[in-house]
Amino acid sequence: MDRVDGRSLLEEEIYSQPEVVARLLERETAHAGQIVCQLPDFEYIQIAARGTSDYAATYATYALASLAGYPVSLATPSLHTIYHAPPRLRGALVVGISQSGQSPDIVAVVEEGRRQGRPTLAITNDGSSPLAAAADHVIELHAGPERSVAATKTYTAQLAVLALLAATWNGDSQKLAALQGMPEAIAKTLAGAGATVSQRAERYRYMRQCVVIGRGYNYATAFELALKLKELDYVMSTAYSSADFRHGPIATVEEDLPVILVMPAGAVLEDMLGMAKDLRERGAELIAISDAEEARPLARTLLPLAAPSPEWLSPITAILPGQLLALHLALAKGLDPDTPRGLQKVTRTY
Amino acid sequence: MDRVDGRSLLEEEIYSQPEVVARLLERETAHAGQIVCQLPDFEYIQIAARGTSDYAATYATYALASLAGYPVSLATPSLHTIYHAPPRLRGALVVGISQSGQSPDIVAVVEEGRRQGRPTLAITNDGSSPLAAAADHVIELHAGPERSVAATKTYTAQLAVLALLAATWNGDSQKLAALQGMPEAIAKTLAGAGATVSQRAERYRYMRQCVVIGRGYNYATAFELALKLKELDYVMSTAYSSADFRHGPIATVEEDLPVILVMPAGAVLEDMLGMAKDLRERGAELIAISDAEEARPLARTLLPLAAPSPEWLSPITAILPGQLLALHLALAKGLDPDTPRGLQKVTRTY
Repeated sequence: MDRVDGRSLLEEEIYSQPEVVARLLERETAHAGQIVCQLPDFEYIQIAARGTSDYAATYATYALASLAGYPVSLATPSLHTIYHAPPRLRGALVVGISQSGQSPDIVAVVEEGRRQGRPTLAITNDGSSPLAAAADHVIELHAGPERSVAATKTYTAQLAVLALLAATWNGDSQKLAALQGMPEAIAKTLAGAGATVSQRAERYRYMRQCVVIGRGYNYATAFELALKLKELDYVMSTAYSSADFRHGPIATVEEDLPVILVMPAGAVLEDMLGMAKDLRERGAELIAISDAEEARPLARTLLPLAAPSPEWLSPITAILPGQLLALHLALAKGLDPDTPRGLQKVTRTY
Repeated sequence: MDRVDGRSLLEEEIYSQPEVVARLLERETAHAGQIVCQLPDFEYIQIAARGTSDYAATYATYALASLAGYPVSLATPSLHTIYHAPPRLRGALVVGISQSGQSPDIVAVVEEGRRQGRPTLAITNDGSSPLAAAADHVIELHAGPERSVAATKTYTAQLAVLALLAATWNGDSQKLAALQGMPEAIAKTLAGAGATVSQRAERYRYMRQCVVIGRGYNYATAFELALKLKELDYVMSTAYSSADFRHGPIATVEEDLPVILVMPAGAVLEDMLGMAKDLRERGAELIAISDAEEARPLARTLLPLAAPSPEWLSPITAILPGQLLALHLALAKGLDPDTPRGLQKVTRTY
């Protein structure tokens, strides 16, 4: 692996995100408009994805529903590959999301959509992949090769594609303009969080388990951050929405349990502040990812969001302090952030 | 709380499941047929649920898709209650699942379905609840009051309702007949697992965290079992499909990590056996819930399924050794299984 100045590939890729998202928006904004015009009528969107791409799909369940009005159904690939009982897809736009475009189960869902005569779309970093070949329309991430095993730049690029589609369907030019401002917001957020995170990571050197909570648009952020902490730091981290957490898992909260709250300003902030207060009363240690002043007195560690964004775009920046935390925690633990044990870059599941 | 013979309410409710499911099938089989006849045409099913009911909905994403051909979309209630941006539900049958029928966010999704002129169905243990009032059709669980905080009998009853709908839509009389055999299968499974589980639970007295893996129909079982271990035993347990687990979280597996594999005989068994072998190589301690002979040599602890069922019905029995494990682990830890800390029976989220 060729590294510059001793930096890990992961760190390079994290800091490349402003240019990755800028390039993506430059190359795909008009193309997304064409695709939206060409698609036939459909009633809902079925998305097939795994791992990090599945969390991008989780973001889509909020962004595409609220901005474009389309309900999203997350596909169950085993119905296609193991049970050989795919559902009827009448009314569906079928979308596959995969960095590599290689996983056979994701390709199978898109192929089935096409077989049933439904419109299909692939979102992938590899325009020559089997997934791209299976779909009517392809939006490429243009992120360049992702060489560290843990996905970072392709996740934010996938979020940006989904936000682009949501804004295009929505038709409000202010929404598209806000999205075009995200490369700068990403750069500011990375610059604003880097020093804090590298200082604070050491505190969590011996953290064995933690909980990550987000809600609404940032429900996806909680899952993606929990996955980074698992992949890079081997921390048993579990993600929840604040609502689901109250329906049972809150019983596990003990004195000193670290809880990361993804709580940028927006409509869910009040709910997240209520959750933060409840958790404090139970003795949890709170780490807040937030640009809201109200979060500061509640959190032992505040990971700042230096560039406030509209809530529907906030997942594109809210994950960044989490990526940095996972990176610096790996360094604090003496782990190589580029080669997590037991993982390969391309995972093929059936 | 009135207990018989020092047994907890939880234990009573676990052992009441054969009669609960028998009563449900007796009272609702014909009714389900009527509802299926009366429903107008629809293309997919949107389900709103939280906590245990959400795991029943996860089962539905497999059972309703494979037997009835309908894709299932899990609703995102915050779009209704927090963002006030509900999606267009054209083409949807809207279903709410809630034991109490009280949670305002679940009621809001069903009310929105009705407002948009879509057919609606409530699955609840309380026919006079707000959820029941909001829906065109109601299937009651007839489970009697559930007095322990952790749901057991209402979960299997919800699974039975969803299996009943799947079989009714499917139209194959053998499938309905197989479902009618489940009360006996539940009784046999409880009788066959009880002694093993009560003996083996003590081994896990000091387990702080664990992973639960299932796939396909039993993906839901993994989530429901992980929730029981959180609610009743305060064990940080995280559920995955075997495919998702390979896409990252497998990196967290360390020597001695307890992993519970839900692996009844069926189409996914081969995949689960492969996962079991990989986990063994990494030093994990395996606990298998299975009726398959191949599982025995791989598992340190085998929780038996004494009444093999068709795979699509196996979640109704596969959860039972898990419920018993959560119960006996609570007893081994000196915890009161009926009153988990910080939880109330009815959780109202918005």
